[in-house]
Amino acid sequence: MTHVVIVGGGFAGIKAARELGNKKDIRITLIDRKNYHLFQPLLYQVAMSALGPGDIAEPLRNMLAHFRNITVFKGIVESVNLQERKISTDFGDIDYDYLVLACGVKHHYFGNEHWEEYAPGLKTIAQATEIRRRVMEAYEAAERTTDPVARKKLLTFVIVGGGPTGVELAGSIGEMSRHTLSKFYRNIDPKLTRIFIVEAAPRILGSFAPELASRATRALEQLGVQIWSSSMVTNVDANGVQIGNERIESATVLWAAGVRAIGQGWNMDAETDRSGRIIVEEDLSVPGYPEVFVGGDQAHFAHYNNVPLPGMAPVAVQEGRAIARNILRDLKGKVRKPFKYNDKGQMATIGRNKAIVEVGKLKFDGAPAWLTWLLVHIYYLTTFKHRILVLMQWGWSYFTFGYGARLIVNKEWRFYPQKKPCATKTPS
Amino acid sequence: MTHVVIVGGGFAGIKAARELGNKKDIRITLIDRKNYHLFQPLLYQVAMSALGPGDIAEPLRNMLAHFRNITVFKGIVESVNLQERKISTDFGDIDYDYLVLACGVKHHYFGNEHWEEYAPGLKTIAQATEIRRRVMEAYEAAERTTDPVARKKLLTFVIVGGGPTGVELAGSIGEMSRHTLSKFYRNIDPKLTRIFIVEAAPRILGSFAPELASRATRALEQLGVQIWSSSMVTNVDANGVQIGNERIESATVLWAAGVRAIGQGWNMDAETDRSGRIIVEEDLSVPGYPEVFVGGDQAHFAHYNNVPLPGMAPVAVQEGRAIARNILRDLKGKVRKPFKYNDKGQMATIGRNKAIVEVGKLKFDGAPAWLTWLLVHIYYLTTFKHRILVLMQWGWSYFTFGYGARLIVNKEWRFYPQKKPCATKTPS
Repeated sequence: MTHVVIVGGGFAGIKAARELGNKKDIRITLIDRKNYHLFQPLLYQVAMSALGPGDIAEPLRNMLAHFRNITVFKGIVESVNLQERKISTDFGDIDYDYLVLACGVKHHYFGNEHWEEYAPGLKTIAQATEIRRRVMEAYEAAERTTDPVARKKLLTFVIVGGGPTGVELAGSIGEMSRHTLSKFYRNIDPKLTRIFIVEAAPRILGSFAPELASRATRALEQLGVQIWSSSMVTNVDANGVQIGNERIESATVLWAAGVRAIGQGWNMDAETDRSGRIIVEEDLSVPGYPEVFVGGDQAHFAHYNNVPLPGMAPVAVQEGRAIARNILRDLKGKVRKPFKYNDKGQMATIGRNKAIVEVGKLKFDGAPAWLTWLLVHIYYLTTFKHRILVLMQWGWSYFTFGYGARLIVNKEWRFYPQKKPCATKTPS
Repeated sequence: MTHVVIVGGGFAGIKAARELGNKKDIRITLIDRKNYHLFQPLLYQVAMSALGPGDIAEPLRNMLAHFRNITVFKGIVESVNLQERKISTDFGDIDYDYLVLACGVKHHYFGNEHWEEYAPGLKTIAQATEIRRRVMEAYEAAERTTDPVARKKLLTFVIVGGGPTGVELAGSIGEMSRHTLSKFYRNIDPKLTRIFIVEAAPRILGSFAPELASRATRALEQLGVQIWSSSMVTNVDANGVQIGNERIESATVLWAAGVRAIGQGWNMDAETDRSGRIIVEEDLSVPGYPEVFVGGDQAHFAHYNNVPLPGMAPVAVQEGRAIARNILRDLKGKVRKPFKYNDKGQMATIGRNKAIVEVGKLKFDGAPAWLTWLLVHIYYLTTFKHRILVLMQWGWSYFTFGYGARLIVNKEWRFYPQKKPCATKTPS
């Protein structure tokens, strides 16, 4: 019985698990710190109240229940010993014959991790809920205050980073403030909301063709988003961001700038790039350890066009599948195949009828791009139930210009004060 | 312009606001600590993963947007000065001509508030999410452990209190463990889950007729729920509950036993009962202060059958309406009417095809009661959109025996540790 241990139930991990599920003479252990698979590309919609957490997440146990050879554990990997073929977790050690690492990335502040308190990133549901809470609390506080300076600061949102996530967040806030919220407040005009994208590079959406990024810029401007490119954030505090000598006062700063691979504390014998991603061979294995594979955002695969593949769902899915198939080839005594990336292009959405799509030389924007984005995302949403529910919510929002339940859920569930300070545990 | 201040956006407050909305020469300020109205009767379904928070909550601003004379503030009342007709909030003082108090209740530990850490109650969405987290984490930990004693403790759930909420929670855990979870785990058999209802009174569901409570007891037993009546909990700790000389070891204890009215720290000149509810006149006003009304769970109205009306949604709705109409009568120079409660009966649900309904002398249980419960709850769910979405989710669950997204959402959104201890703010 060959024991395959998969760490991470994201796009790469779940794909590998499914390809190996119910295959003879293999048993699989999948470990994830969460109990669910998350459809990351729509996480910003949870942050912006358009969808609920349950719409884009599915328990891993549900997804894998019918594979009798897969055991799922909710747990955290603490170290990886490649020599002894063993990983240590918070619930004990686990030996493996094959190891598949697919833990993804977390956001990163380039040595300024204390900025996180003032500028949360968007990688988990808890973070999405926190961003939603901050955005909606800002409007509530603006409605309450009578001080025009405080109100202006509350109605100013800064997004650091002009990649797809930053653009999606900024576009959503723009749309919400211009279309949805206007009739809900008595003391403020949500249309006065100022939204900034602060990007260090000379332009936003650097991975797209310049003409598409330019059209996205115009679409954002129509929603009231101001783009500051070539602008490096030098400080973030409770009252705004500093960009060299310039400053924007803002009560709500969101971070969409940098990521770093999970697994920095694993003490693992493998070469990483400066983002902490593990550099892999053509077959996605770790050099010197053919029984260890890395997939998804955690992998640095530079054998396609000589640049590392981007951190996107299609890349992760393809890598997960390729890893599983190479393991199966091993077991059948066949020769492994190198991973061939099938580039299906990329897209980003800005708002209602506003998106950009780039597939090879084909580039388009506007309503056709938005419809493409919509159909592709609905199609890839994992389960049938989710697809229908999300479609209904989007349909509702589209025709009513409304958004979903803009609930502010308190972080604190207790009514009575606790005496001991609450310990915050650090995930790796 | 008569200024009506309503505190609380629950069933009573929202009904009063809607009745007064867009009425001439009235302006209304509604204050709530949350930004949403919560359909409390279905909160246990959020705790049990059958519904998401967004399914049973609706932003107050949405619900009241079309009433141009209503201003909504998210805030917390800190004190009420009846003599000066003024309330103090965390965002300043507010004067009123009429005051409507409808703040509801929170759970209560009879002087043992430190039990809350080990036995959360179910009154808010944050608490429902916390209960869900604890229940699902217990199964995850049971799947991981190899110690049979630890596993038994993890698969034991104790619900303190045998009222409708306690019964609904116990029934849901029973159903989930017997029907839904069995295929998802490899190392544990969720059917071995032990569920206890610990009730101090001689029987559960004391507000129902004895024969109905007896039938509910049988239905619960069929789902594996063990009922300990005449059992007073004497201690709760991290490892279980003590009932005099007896003890149940359990990793998950839930509190559905006592409630206490919000507003104990308000320093208000009004008589309360021992649950902190304000004793009101026949017209729902506070004795000596005809311009101050109390409705919903916060009111102690004993002019119907000489016992205080129960804390139920229909009572709150009717009281909210009566308060608003008496204010309108005042403004028209008419005489106020005493509040007449129209008793529509009560019901409780235990599980799939299992419920009890009592309307006057009419009593029934089983599938007809369950269908009645279902239709009534769907009907009263506030908005059209929610009704359809909830119906879809329930339909899905009914036919698949599945539950909704059993997401465990971490309380902590940060990746990086914070140095300062996080302060927990105490709501009144």
